[in-house]
Amino acid sequence: MPKKHNINEVKMIPLGGVGEIGKNMMLVEMAGEILIIDAGVMFPEDDLLGIDLVIPDFSYVKENANRVKGIVLTHGHEDHIGALPYLLKEINVPVFGTKLTLGLVEGKLKEHRINKGRKLKVVNPGSSINVGSFKVDFILVNHSIADTCALAIHTPLGPIIYASDFKFDQTPIDGEVADFHKLAELGDNYPGVLALFADSTNVEREGYTLSEKVVGGTIDDIFRKARNRIVVATFASNIHRVQQIVDAAFKYNRKIAFTGRSMINNIEIARELGYLIIPEDMIVDIRNISNLPDDKIVLLTTGSQGEPMAALTRMARGDHYHINIKDGDTVVISASAIPGNEKLVGQTINQLFKRGANVIYEDISGVHVSGHASQEELKLMLNLVKPEFFVPVHGEFRHLHRHAKLAEEVGIPEKNIYIADIGDVISFTKRRVKKVGEIRAGQVLVDGLGVGDVGNIVLRDRKLLSEDGIIIVVVTIDKKGKILSGPDIITRGFVYIRESEELIAEATSRVEKALAECEANNITEWSVLKSTIRDALNDYIYKKIKRNPMILPIIMQV
Amino acid sequence: MPKKHNINEVKMIPLGGVGEIGKNMMLVEMAGEILIIDAGVMFPEDDLLGIDLVIPDFSYVKENANRVKGIVLTHGHEDHIGALPYLLKEINVPVFGTKLTLGLVEGKLKEHRINKGRKLKVVNPGSSINVGSFKVDFILVNHSIADTCALAIHTPLGPIIYASDFKFDQTPIDGEVADFHKLAELGDNYPGVLALFADSTNVEREGYTLSEKVVGGTIDDIFRKARNRIVVATFASNIHRVQQIVDAAFKYNRKIAFTGRSMINNIEIARELGYLIIPEDMIVDIRNISNLPDDKIVLLTTGSQGEPMAALTRMARGDHYHINIKDGDTVVISASAIPGNEKLVGQTINQLFKRGANVIYEDISGVHVSGHASQEELKLMLNLVKPEFFVPVHGEFRHLHRHAKLAEEVGIPEKNIYIADIGDVISFTKRRVKKVGEIRAGQVLVDGLGVGDVGNIVLRDRKLLSEDGIIIVVVTIDKKGKILSGPDIITRGFVYIRESEELIAEATSRVEKALAECEANNITEWSVLKSTIRDALNDYIYKKIKRNPMILPIIMQV
Repeated sequence: MPKKHNINEVKMIPLGGVGEIGKNMMLVEMAGEILIIDAGVMFPEDDLLGIDLVIPDFSYVKENANRVKGIVLTHGHEDHIGALPYLLKEINVPVFGTKLTLGLVEGKLKEHRINKGRKLKVVNPGSSINVGSFKVDFILVNHSIADTCALAIHTPLGPIIYASDFKFDQTPIDGEVADFHKLAELGDNYPGVLALFADSTNVEREGYTLSEKVVGGTIDDIFRKARNRIVVATFASNIHRVQQIVDAAFKYNRKIAFTGRSMINNIEIARELGYLIIPEDMIVDIRNISNLPDDKIVLLTTGSQGEPMAALTRMARGDHYHINIKDGDTVVISASAIPGNEKLVGQTINQLFKRGANVIYEDISGVHVSGHASQEELKLMLNLVKPEFFVPVHGEFRHLHRHAKLAEEVGIPEKNIYIADIGDVISFTKRRVKKVGEIRAGQVLVDGLGVGDVGNIVLRDRKLLSEDGIIIVVVTIDKKGKILSGPDIITRGFVYIRESEELIAEATSRVEKALAECEANNITEWSVLKSTIRDALNDYIYKKIKRNPMILPIIMQV
Repeated sequence: MPKKHNINEVKMIPLGGVGEIGKNMMLVEMAGEILIIDAGVMFPEDDLLGIDLVIPDFSYVKENANRVKGIVLTHGHEDHIGALPYLLKEINVPVFGTKLTLGLVEGKLKEHRINKGRKLKVVNPGSSINVGSFKVDFILVNHSIADTCALAIHTPLGPIIYASDFKFDQTPIDGEVADFHKLAELGDNYPGVLALFADSTNVEREGYTLSEKVVGGTIDDIFRKARNRIVVATFASNIHRVQQIVDAAFKYNRKIAFTGRSMINNIEIARELGYLIIPEDMIVDIRNISNLPDDKIVLLTTGSQGEPMAALTRMARGDHYHINIKDGDTVVISASAIPGNEKLVGQTINQLFKRGANVIYEDISGVHVSGHASQEELKLMLNLVKPEFFVPVHGEFRHLHRHAKLAEEVGIPEKNIYIADIGDVISFTKRRVKKVGEIRAGQVLVDGLGVGDVGNIVLRDRKLLSEDGIIIVVVTIDKKGKILSGPDIITRGFVYIRESEELIAEATSRVEKALAECEANNITEWSVLKSTIRDALNDYIYKKIKRNPMILPIIMQV
């Protein structure tokens, strides 16, 4: 049992998800114990060349592993569970989440081959768990994946409510409205909510986010009108969306096929766990759909973000194994482009139109709704739970800033609002919130199997290489520094050799001259020879062609 | 004088601007003569690594240079005039455009040092010119740069109207509404308009595009409320926007300073030519603004697209020479993010907020309006000119497709609408439009001073290099194939050496072993040695770390 030191203080430490959208992870520290909320990934920005994933820096967790009592998960999206396999390689503690969330986690651990000996504990929404001396309530909220919960972490100073991500859907597909009553009860009862941490993704949007049910209406409409095949792309994890598409297929007497690895995986897990109801005889294998009439088929696919290798993107390009888009197909992209993906999605739409499809995308209102709360819902959350302190999360700085203003509008004093950076040690007492320290935090880059082995120097080199390529100059010298072979110049990503024979010939003769001078002056120091080669080329190349390739001198001694 | 062959036929050949947004260029061919409309650049997509600009392929123009009579320009935006310096290196023909357009062209030619001996001929909106046997009317329309014209190219089959880019602003800043009367006259009089080519950029937007004047109202409001410095970022070429900002500065008694090369250049040209009125005593040098009280200064800057080197981006990052953004500054981004720039603009906004600025951006309605016509204006254009044939331009395929549907809605028969690809030879007679051929067309990549010397192989290499870097293996052998030195392994952009000593050591020993086998078998063929080295590394590296760096074996013989 924890010593009762510092029980007047609770600390929260974000390791991700503030000042950025992605890699959500928060530590709760109380009386010497640590509870982890979520462990998500972020998809790399364009400047992280070649990087597959970004995960939070776990240094602090590793150093304090013996104090970590468990991990609680809010929901099953990648930006909340994607870093778990990496985290669980460092610590082995129980993981708590709802059934669907842990279903997705299990698949993930299997893929990483670390599922053995892990303690995954299913929690029903509406119930509570004890982890170390933490008591945590799982409170149902709505989101674009089923089984999403807000968490109430009980402390002697009052509960801390962590609501990332959420929306309030008054007419949810599964009939399960958010647990307003629990939120209201926590807000109203002694000792009152100490702090609210809430989703800022859609804080720039006025009003309410539309109900998922709206999409059902639009889909029904599209299905009613379609005379040929229907292809729908959506997020594989959006089980309620998938259910609505299945329901429409059932109503209009169409069979359904799936394509895309994550679509197939997610649907399998969701069906197994009872989140998705599809009569067995509705499902056809994609290889057999050509046996059915065009007006009897719906194809559910990945690729709503224009990802180059995803199924819809392949269909649009014309290199999918089993399906070719043809004149008269209806293609529905039931998703909005995540910032940064607009171009890729646009490309896919263009290609689909070119193939003769009727493409229905974002600008048709009702073909997609967001999973995040808009301003009025955010205000409702604040008014329901009436927190003493408020910390906006799940947003870039501008979202957090706007959410802070919104909280002021509903009456939270400015001094009770804290805009966090990752690594901040945020201390709460009954009287105040303040930063009391900073721990190591940041991003760890995953490239293939390497975790953290690509850093700034490697990235800088990749950027250089990507812009103007590389010029390699090789010289073989003997022990006295006499040139035996070379200089040979080899380039990659710089210029067509065919187009630049003259340039390379002139460059070679410049290097020869520079090296001859070195020889004449008895300079044999390798570092001097190398910088001589670099100097001989840098200016010449830039003047001649206004490019700055990486210049790499290699000296071989025999 | 042209022979009168084929006078029943007029051909239009797009070299850019259809199926893409950018590098607008169109050829008109009649009775053996060629007229060029516009010659624009496109900014490279992300996958064109290291490329600075994309210009149309001019092959056909070069091959038919003797038949080209002139170039007519619609307006002064980069995507319509940016390729002129490259085109004018190939052909020297007169260039016709309005005063501001040619002012901008002149600056551009000076930069490229090809201004000598060029014939730039100013045309007033509302007047006509003769080029070869072409008669061309310049018809004023509204757009986000002053002095924009639609063109009517007269042919014996009736005029062809080329309206890219345009909007109809009923309350334009300079009071010059579009020349509805001329358009109506052409539409109504014998022989009627043969074909309309029109702007598809905003065809997905319902209703009307807001008037530029709306922005003036919002700016006035912002200036009235601001208590400290005001910084406004906008497109340098949007002279009317700049004028409105200047007017607000005047009204609220603020001096104005400029930063950013293109802002300074454009304003100089626009002032010189009388398009922009700024009292001399309102202008202060940016180096002196710290002498003025904060509420007496407006700074007009580039960087509305978050371009890494632009002035606003530097201010946001904190590395601008003269200006630091500070608490209480009001920063207005009076532009919308061009697709693909959303992330960069978002970053800039975040950084500005962090520095304490009050940032006013896109989501505040009225801080920016588009320069392109929405659906109702596009319909109005169609109904005014009543063309026999219609060709949507200035759009990706999905925009052209949608614009075609819109034209059908107002009564153009489907068979009279042509959706073009670049290179299509589109033939018009009185009775029909159809494709009668295809010429070479495409994109030419400009990288530094190189035009067209970077092709698919170089780009593929840059992509490979950017993702996983390069592994260089150097071996020196004697004439008999005996290894004298190496194999040495050098990597760039692959992995921290420090983190991977073991990996490199193992890779080296694998190469050694493979080469030893070659030696034992008397294999000295370089190509075999090289592929042996590649094979020895490829699988090992991928298995070990799941990356695919470029592997470059270099053999030196002494």
